[in-house]
Amino acid sequence: MLKNIPPEHPRYQSLLQRETLIEAVENGVAAPAGLVAQGRGEAMDYLFGEETLAFARAAIRAAALAMSLARHPVVSVNGNVAALCPSDLVALSKAGGGILEVNLFYRTPGREEKIESILKSFGASEVLGVGSDASASIPELLSERRRVSPRGILASDCVFVPLEDGDRTEALAALGKTVVTVDLNPLSRTARRAAITIVDNVIRALPLLCEELATVSALPENVRRAELQTYNNQEILAQALDYLTDRMARLARGFREG
Amino acid sequence: MLKNIPPEHPRYQSLLQRETLIEAVENGVAAPAGLVAQGRGEAMDYLFGEETLAFARAAIRAAALAMSLARHPVVSVNGNVAALCPSDLVALSKAGGGILEVNLFYRTPGREEKIESILKSFGASEVLGVGSDASASIPELLSERRRVSPRGILASDCVFVPLEDGDRTEALAALGKTVVTVDLNPLSRTARRAAITIVDNVIRALPLLCEELATVSALPENVRRAELQTYNNQEILAQALDYLTDRMARLARGFREG
Repeated sequence: MLKNIPPEHPRYQSLLQRETLIEAVENGVAAPAGLVAQGRGEAMDYLFGEETLAFARAAIRAAALAMSLARHPVVSVNGNVAALCPSDLVALSKAGGGILEVNLFYRTPGREEKIESILKSFGASEVLGVGSDASASIPELLSERRRVSPRGILASDCVFVPLEDGDRTEALAALGKTVVTVDLNPLSRTARRAAITIVDNVIRALPLLCEELATVSALPENVRRAELQTYNNQEILAQALDYLTDRMARLARGFREG
Repeated sequence: MLKNIPPEHPRYQSLLQRETLIEAVENGVAAPAGLVAQGRGEAMDYLFGEETLAFARAAIRAAALAMSLARHPVVSVNGNVAALCPSDLVALSKAGGGILEVNLFYRTPGREEKIESILKSFGASEVLGVGSDASASIPELLSERRRVSPRGILASDCVFVPLEDGDRTEALAALGKTVVTVDLNPLSRTARRAAITIVDNVIRALPLLCEELATVSALPENVRRAELQTYNNQEILAQALDYLTDRMARLARGFREG
């Protein structure tokens, strides 16, 4: 489709991301429901002006602090993030963000292996949660999603779950893990139940998170701990809503003035 | 998937609609990109509290007036609306909303015919725009979407294009047609370029539009014309933004109060 759309089209970047994901569904890397999730993100990103805003930067900083302080951090990978930003996931893992573990909402034959091979093609040395490695289980609503790696999510103290659904986020938080997420909807259950919510497009947030992880890793541990304690996720979500409040009010004025 | 999800799940209705569309994509009725569009709608509907609000009711009234006053109204049908609300489309057509015409963003072999047969299974007597009937063309960005029926969209004075994209809406408006749309994003080009924008979920809006069409049809033509002249679409879009402004501000307060 993008063959027909010129780069100056107002929605070009967004269309590019969309096409990447449609291809991933056709290749069995992402699930059809992942396209719906992508659409939800598109709409919210549009409302936020497709920019990484101050509340997202603050959450990225906190996420980097939490990951750097974790004893056993894990980066949970689903079909959508694997399709949209595989190289950033590998870079994050190498920067200390955690071991990579595939964890899918829809476990269909071959999907885990496809995601593993994508991550490996971008330089991942190990990918957990594939096939028989997902031999442990956590209490969760949907049986097919209970399966986790005993060396990964099960043993983790901090799990990064970008683009995750509410049930899974709640299940991980209930196990006492520090859940860090990327979610463009500040009202979602995922956004509200996570300890740290980066309200941003994952495509923009991951490179910034990698950078920040390198920055904070140079700080003494007690300094990192003290800074992380000042982080308030509900306040960050409220700031995201403040931004929408202001922007919608400004746009409404524009509509009325013509 | 819904087999595993109880009806009391917070997102049940939304999940049901999503599953309907995923099935439609698997059956070739809707396109994969239609799932992304569905997701955009889901996110906006969520922000609007999944209710038909006052600004949507006002636009539905205006849409009914415009359709009832049109010399040659047409209801344009794409894969998503055909999958989500086929019976409402047929009911709208029978209530005087216009002739049904299939018009697809992605014309793939067999899709038009599948949509035609769905509409006919719900009682449509005639469906334009299928195969060689789409023999006319209108000036538009994408060549495959230029094709329209000479007895339908080409000859129309009022076109109802629920869930339409910006390029097509602009093309139809540029031809001088009264474009009526359903779009949950009040900021989209479709919402802004249409003459009448119903900011609501199409599932809820169509039955209300059918009812309103029956109501206004009983009014004298000059009364309908006078009422329609008072309609201001930019003001309606501004009211939709007002609603978001107020709701986001209220939710931010709630987040801060815990």
